[in-house]
Amino acid sequence: MNDRRLAEQVRIVGSGLLGASIGLGLSAKGVDVIVDDASPSTRALAIAYGAGRAPAVDDAPGLVVVAVPPDVTADIVAAELQKYPDALVTDVASVKVAPLEELRARGADLSRYLGSHPMAGRERGGAVSARADLFVGRPWILAGHDAISYRRAAAIEDLVLDLGAVPIEMDVHDHDRAVALVSHAPQLVASLLASRLREGSGSALGLAGQGLRDTTRIAASNPALWVQILGANAAEIAAVLRPLRAELDTVIAALDDPEASASRRTIAEALAAGNDGVARIPGKHGQDKRFTALVVKVDDKPGELARLLTEIGEEGVNMEDLRIEHSPETKVGFAEISVLPEAAHPLAAALEARGWTLMEAER
Amino acid sequence: MNDRRLAEQVRIVGSGLLGASIGLGLSAKGVDVIVDDASPSTRALAIAYGAGRAPAVDDAPGLVVVAVPPDVTADIVAAELQKYPDALVTDVASVKVAPLEELRARGADLSRYLGSHPMAGRERGGAVSARADLFVGRPWILAGHDAISYRRAAAIEDLVLDLGAVPIEMDVHDHDRAVALVSHAPQLVASLLASRLREGSGSALGLAGQGLRDTTRIAASNPALWVQILGANAAEIAAVLRPLRAELDTVIAALDDPEASASRRTIAEALAAGNDGVARIPGKHGQDKRFTALVVKVDDKPGELARLLTEIGEEGVNMEDLRIEHSPETKVGFAEISVLPEAAHPLAAALEARGWTLMEAER
Repeated sequence: MNDRRLAEQVRIVGSGLLGASIGLGLSAKGVDVIVDDASPSTRALAIAYGAGRAPAVDDAPGLVVVAVPPDVTADIVAAELQKYPDALVTDVASVKVAPLEELRARGADLSRYLGSHPMAGRERGGAVSARADLFVGRPWILAGHDAISYRRAAAIEDLVLDLGAVPIEMDVHDHDRAVALVSHAPQLVASLLASRLREGSGSALGLAGQGLRDTTRIAASNPALWVQILGANAAEIAAVLRPLRAELDTVIAALDDPEASASRRTIAEALAAGNDGVARIPGKHGQDKRFTALVVKVDDKPGELARLLTEIGEEGVNMEDLRIEHSPETKVGFAEISVLPEAAHPLAAALEARGWTLMEAER
Repeated sequence: MNDRRLAEQVRIVGSGLLGASIGLGLSAKGVDVIVDDASPSTRALAIAYGAGRAPAVDDAPGLVVVAVPPDVTADIVAAELQKYPDALVTDVASVKVAPLEELRARGADLSRYLGSHPMAGRERGGAVSARADLFVGRPWILAGHDAISYRRAAAIEDLVLDLGAVPIEMDVHDHDRAVALVSHAPQLVASLLASRLREGSGSALGLAGQGLRDTTRIAASNPALWVQILGANAAEIAAVLRPLRAELDTVIAALDDPEASASRRTIAEALAAGNDGVARIPGKHGQDKRFTALVVKVDDKPGELARLLTEIGEEGVNMEDLRIEHSPETKVGFAEISVLPEAAHPLAAALEARGWTLMEAER
């Protein structure tokens, strides 16, 4: 069994967006990729698209990747472990405890199974949307457990690396707790908040600013996909939402008696706790104090933003981040540009000298 | 009393960001602007910054703009109405029912008062942040009531127009209800969600994607400012949060029994309601079906994004919106570009021909 480097033959079960993208990426590396799917037409589409070849009777994959919906993942993984007793098997479902427990309960050979989760999901699926570089630069969790050896796990890590993703080892429970916190609970909260907008007047909605747009953007997600994900990680999500509900109760009680000094304190504490929480998000956005934001007024006509960014480049400044804000009523937009603090002042002066109007940054 | 067109002499009480910005904007129009503030040093700063001149004994303003914190707005408006019996008075507080009711209870001359609310708040305040063009293109609510005549209200509308803002007439109750829905409740929900992040592990937070960043961005707002705003509009905010809590209870109950078909239905309905709600937000973002999104891979180096936007301009395509997504771990970013549907296909082909890599759009 070849489990030191990427297997020469990889079988992919499920040829939607993730499966087909993995197939495209591995095919580009010269791997013999077998594509299978419960639906013959879906499989034919992925093969036509270049994700791999059809299964054959003498297939002997070193690695099987199961890329099917969460609720059938354990079933398919168990079947593949049985069918190919020499193969390593991984899956790409966005929950990791439930499949592992189900496999353990069935007595599956866990020494050959390591679940994984590429953080590259797209709501629009299907092989037609697949890209060989879908995973480039994205975190890809390897959901570690004790039954698989380090050496075998390394072969699955190689798959992740070969697809250009960043492997991150994480215990299955830690994984499910983490995605409940950073993805699943925020999805539900955004949906519940957006749900309130059904009851607003048109003129009320007309006052919507960037804050509302940002807080509710992911509420546009596909319910059919998310109901499966949320159902499979229900306990961890509830563990995030229950204390949130308790704090919401406290805030509502404070709003019901807004004159009381205790109420003011409650609300101030809730806001300060939000400051503390958002400050913990790493990366360019959030509370990252490494960068300073400049807000530049940009006329809403072709080429204006390009001209701004070109001129920033001419000033030799690397833009760390960019956000666009615009008001539907006008032909004016605002570009919020994040740069290193030492670059902010000279850049602001240079842009004003070039005729741009700078505004006060939002935060 | 000159109330047909913008008053020749305008008195501004409160010289923070909003007051000083109004002063700068009106001074630029040749208006005689008087700047006052409870703090002599704050007033001196705003005057030094060009917002206007110091008060004099023979001042006779045609219009007084009260730009002080919400909890003292009614006090100051009442004092100004008494002090200048020929002047119209407006305020710019972000709540509108409480000041009007307080003024009515005091027997103030409401025939000369019309509250207003420029939707141009910035979290970073002070006269040093002031801009003459702070209000350009922003909605500015005029909170109508029956005691002021149309002719007098028109003079305050002129102020709004002269500052480049878009006047929107709205009843005080409708205003407070609207901002509770589109601004105040989302602020609290974002804070409560971000508050949960205090308890996540560092590796969990490391999985944060754009969705979490968007849903929690406004949780970075200033608690001292927001506790006043929220307290002054408590009943309307509670009226939004109470049904949200009821739906949250239902969702948590469903998550506690995830196998039940009723639970699946509850969660699916909550997600679908979120779809419906976010679809009601007007403008470029949200559910606007007028535009199609293309996602382009952009190397994180100076000039790349400018080059992309320049080339989009060369293709003759007007970009309706732009979002940037990036992963902190890598040197790769993604630009999500919204264009008219008929432009999407030719633009995608043109960009690929120019060597850009297009990815599947998120939604």
